[in-house]
Amino acid sequence: MPGKMQRIPDVVIRRLPVYLRYLHQLQEYEVETVSSQQMGVDLNLNPAQIRKDLSIFGDFGIKGMGYKVAELAEQISEILGLNKEIPIVLVGVGNLGAALCRYNRYQESATKIIGIFDGHPSKIGQQHGSLEVRPMEELTEFVQQHKVKLAILATPPAAAQSVCDALVAAGIKAILNFAPLLLQAPPHVRVSNADVTSELQALAYYLHG
Amino acid sequence: MPGKMQRIPDVVIRRLPVYLRYLHQLQEYEVETVSSQQMGVDLNLNPAQIRKDLSIFGDFGIKGMGYKVAELAEQISEILGLNKEIPIVLVGVGNLGAALCRYNRYQESATKIIGIFDGHPSKIGQQHGSLEVRPMEELTEFVQQHKVKLAILATPPAAAQSVCDALVAAGIKAILNFAPLLLQAPPHVRVSNADVTSELQALAYYLHG
Repeated sequence: MPGKMQRIPDVVIRRLPVYLRYLHQLQEYEVETVSSQQMGVDLNLNPAQIRKDLSIFGDFGIKGMGYKVAELAEQISEILGLNKEIPIVLVGVGNLGAALCRYNRYQESATKIIGIFDGHPSKIGQQHGSLEVRPMEELTEFVQQHKVKLAILATPPAAAQSVCDALVAAGIKAILNFAPLLLQAPPHVRVSNADVTSELQALAYYLHG
Repeated sequence: MPGKMQRIPDVVIRRLPVYLRYLHQLQEYEVETVSSQQMGVDLNLNPAQIRKDLSIFGDFGIKGMGYKVAELAEQISEILGLNKEIPIVLVGVGNLGAALCRYNRYQESATKIIGIFDGHPSKIGQQHGSLEVRPMEELTEFVQQHKVKLAILATPPAAAQSVCDALVAAGIKAILNFAPLLLQAPPHVRVSNADVTSELQALAYYLHG
């Protein structure tokens, strides 16, 4: 793992799903090859950066012809580990959590929410699509039984750290955190913050003048 | 604007809200100074990277003492343009849009949703907190009247590009896009993708092995 993390920088990893989604869109239109130039225009990214990103894991580009769309999509999927289903648990089924459940069902992605949990007794047993809200007491057993490594945390901030601790104790290796606070997690657990306020604040920078 | 965008790299801009939230947490605990070492531990980031990020806009660190928490928070707020309220319009008041409205109300941030819009006649007039869903026909006038530059796009994918075009035509300069597709926008408009599937796919990389 540490070796792999050094090989592909985090910023590149964050761009790979964007490339992948773009390539899947091209496949829908039956486009077979694409140049880094065209990708740059469509994705609003620097073509040199795209070439550099994609060169990291082998040279798929053909000079003057560009990348083979299907092949590149396949390679990116494989590198991200998306060639098999990735089960997810979601903790915190409030407005946002419910929206994420719903959203996940629409997506054609390897990442699938398979269990939803909440600490509030009133929520237990509520149905969201095909999933029923489970009590936190069942979290560890569920995670271990289904070999879940990825979790979405969508609780209110006050509950977030204790839920994070419970997820880590259950064996979760990566957390997408929607709670507006910084979680403390051990180094072997990857936390990505999807905090909307932070995203908006970063965009605010580009509004000056 | 272009000068400014060259001066601070996008990846650093994305980390500034994270630093800011952390510094605000420290302020709640009445912590007055913090070292890059401590920040690194708490934020799970490399202290050298933190020092480099923060050095970009002046040297606030005091050798052996660290950063003055209040001063650094103030400087980051100013650089991001958060010293005044930043009005936001949200388009697409489905499950996710409604959750974002609700979430925004809880946040103590300069970024505030002040208008919500939807293309579905059945949604018009629905109340979300103090906001009422407006028809798309009112978008341009609202944006111009309230000098809104920032928008959240939370429509289904099929509607997203035409809504993006409408936002750009109305004068919006930055869009936080929750729709799972890549928007085409002119270069002067900043689009940030908050797509949950992409976030999950990027995290999947760290689950291997």
